[in-house]
Amino acid sequence: MPPEHFHGVVVPVLTPFRRNLEPDKQRFAALCRWLTGEGVNGLAVFGTTSEANSMSVGERMALLEHLADTGIGPELLMPGTGACAVPDAVDLTSHAVKIGCGGVLMLPPFYYKNQSDEGFFAYFCEVIERVGDPRLKVYLYHFPQMSAAPISPALVARLRRRYPDAVVGLKDSSGDWEATKRLRAEFPEMAIFPSSETRLDEGLRLGMAGCISATANIQPRAIRKFIDSHGTPDAAALNQHISTVRTILERHPLVPALKALLARDTGDQDWAITRPPITQLPADAAARLLDELDASDCYEPVGLPNL
Amino acid sequence: MPPEHFHGVVVPVLTPFRRNLEPDKQRFAALCRWLTGEGVNGLAVFGTTSEANSMSVGERMALLEHLADTGIGPELLMPGTGACAVPDAVDLTSHAVKIGCGGVLMLPPFYYKNQSDEGFFAYFCEVIERVGDPRLKVYLYHFPQMSAAPISPALVARLRRRYPDAVVGLKDSSGDWEATKRLRAEFPEMAIFPSSETRLDEGLRLGMAGCISATANIQPRAIRKFIDSHGTPDAAALNQHISTVRTILERHPLVPALKALLARDTGDQDWAITRPPITQLPADAAARLLDELDASDCYEPVGLPNL
Repeated sequence: MPPEHFHGVVVPVLTPFRRNLEPDKQRFAALCRWLTGEGVNGLAVFGTTSEANSMSVGERMALLEHLADTGIGPELLMPGTGACAVPDAVDLTSHAVKIGCGGVLMLPPFYYKNQSDEGFFAYFCEVIERVGDPRLKVYLYHFPQMSAAPISPALVARLRRRYPDAVVGLKDSSGDWEATKRLRAEFPEMAIFPSSETRLDEGLRLGMAGCISATANIQPRAIRKFIDSHGTPDAAALNQHISTVRTILERHPLVPALKALLARDTGDQDWAITRPPITQLPADAAARLLDELDASDCYEPVGLPNL
Repeated sequence: MPPEHFHGVVVPVLTPFRRNLEPDKQRFAALCRWLTGEGVNGLAVFGTTSEANSMSVGERMALLEHLADTGIGPELLMPGTGACAVPDAVDLTSHAVKIGCGGVLMLPPFYYKNQSDEGFFAYFCEVIERVGDPRLKVYLYHFPQMSAAPISPALVARLRRRYPDAVVGLKDSSGDWEATKRLRAEFPEMAIFPSSETRLDEGLRLGMAGCISATANIQPRAIRKFIDSHGTPDAAALNQHISTVRTILERHPLVPALKALLARDTGDQDWAITRPPITQLPADAAARLLDELDASDCYEPVGLPNL
C-alpha cells in the first residue's frame, strides 16, 4: 500500500441536524475537530453512518466547504460521493477533488437492482473520466446489505486495470470476513478497510489499511491507541476494550444509538436528532444501551464540548 | 374513487439520452406528444422505467419544464418525485405542484434498509407539510423488488388518516396480485394501479383505476382500446393481444428492451441509449425480442416519427 493512502482509524462522521432538520454546520465542524484532536487518521464524512443519502448534493457541498473554511485539513477528508445519478456523483466528486480531499468513498448506483458489472463499470468510468483530475483517489464502497448493489471482485479488478492510479482502496462493510481477506490477498496494492474495529487486530497483521468504523465516532482515541500498540504487550487489553464497546453498540441500530450516546455525553439532546427515514432511539432502548456501556467498564464518555 | 384522480392507461415514459448521456428534451417531448395522441390518460414521467433515479434533481426539473413549455397539459403529468433525501423530494414535489401536475408518484427513501413505518411516515409528512400546497396529490409508489423499501398497508392507512385529501393513490409494482386486491378492498377511495396491463381485466372489474405500465410506452393505443372495450364482446381478444406483448417483453430487462424496440421502430438507434448502471440490450437479445414480437402477430410497431 503506497504511503499516501488513507490508513489507520477513519471515521464516518455523524451529521448533526437542527430541530428543523437542517444540517448543523457548527456542530459538524466541532465533531470533526474533536475527532482529529483524538488522533483519528481520516474523516470519511458523508458515509452511511453520516445519513449522507438523506442529504441533497448542495447540503453535502456546503458542509464540506464549511469544514475546509474552518481549518480541517482537506487531506484528512474522504467524503462519500457515490450517488444513483452519474451527474450527482460527478458534481460531488469534482467538488471534493477541487477542495483537495485526500480521497472519496464511492457507492455504486443503488436504485436499480441486479445490474451487471458492465453497468457498474460504465458508471465508475463515467465519473472518473468526467472528473478528469489526476488528484482523484477513489475508495470503492462495498455494502451489499445497505446498498443492495454489491461490488464484485471482478469489477474491482477491471477498475484497477483501467485506473490503477485512481482506484486505490475499498471499504468492505459486508461483514463477510473471509471475503475481505480474499480482497486483501487479490489486491495487495489497495488500501482495504473493514468496517469494524473488531477486525483490526487480524486485519493489521494481514496488511489491511485500518478500519472505517461507525463506532470510531465515540471511541476514536481508544481505537487509535490500539493501532499504535499493535504488536506490543498492551494490544490485547486495548483490543478487548474497543471490541466490547463495538459489540454492545451493534445490538442497536447504529446511527440512532451513536447519536443517543453523543446526546448523553455532551448533555446536548439535539445530537439525537436524525433525518427520516432513520428514527431516534426510543428512550427505553437508549437507557438500556447506556446501562450496558456503563456496566462494561470499557466506555469512556465522549469529551466533545457542548457548543 | 373521486373523478379527478388519474385513471386508465398511465405511462412511465422512457427518457431518451444523447450519446453524451445528456437527457434529450426534444425526443422526450416528442414521445410524450405521441403517447397523448395515442390516447393515454396520464404520463408518469420519472418512474423506474424512465431511469429517473439516474438523473439529477435539476435534470428532472428541466425536462418537466420543457414538457409544460411545449404544450403538454400539466394535468396529465404524474412525475416521480420520491427521493432518498427529504430536501430533494420537497424540491421535486413543490416544482411539480407549481407547474400544475395532476399528481406525483412518490417512492419512499430507499437507501437505508429495514426502516420502520414510523421513519417512512415521518418522511412523507415532512414532504407533504413542507410542500404545503392543497393542490398536492400523492400517489404512493410500492416497488419492493427495486426500492427494497416496501410501503406497508399500515403506513398507507396512517397517511390516509393524516392526509385524506393529499394521499389519493398507489402504484403497486410488487407483482403480488393478492396484495394488490387487498389494497383495493382496504382503500376503496384510493386510485390503485397495478403495474401491468395483464392485470387490467380483473383490476377494472374490482374497481382499480387502470394501470401504470412500462409496456404502455410501446402499446399505448392497444391498452386504451382494451380499457374502452371493457365489458364488451371485443374485450377478450384485445386483452389477449396486449397481454401477449407484455409477456414477451417481460422475458427481457424491461428498460433496455423497450428502448431497443423504439430504436428499431423509429429507425433512430440513439433511442437505445441508457444511462449507467442500466446497459443496452445486447444485439442477440434484441434480435430475439424482435423475432418473438413479430411472430406473435400482436405487436404493432411504434409510430413515433423519427425527429
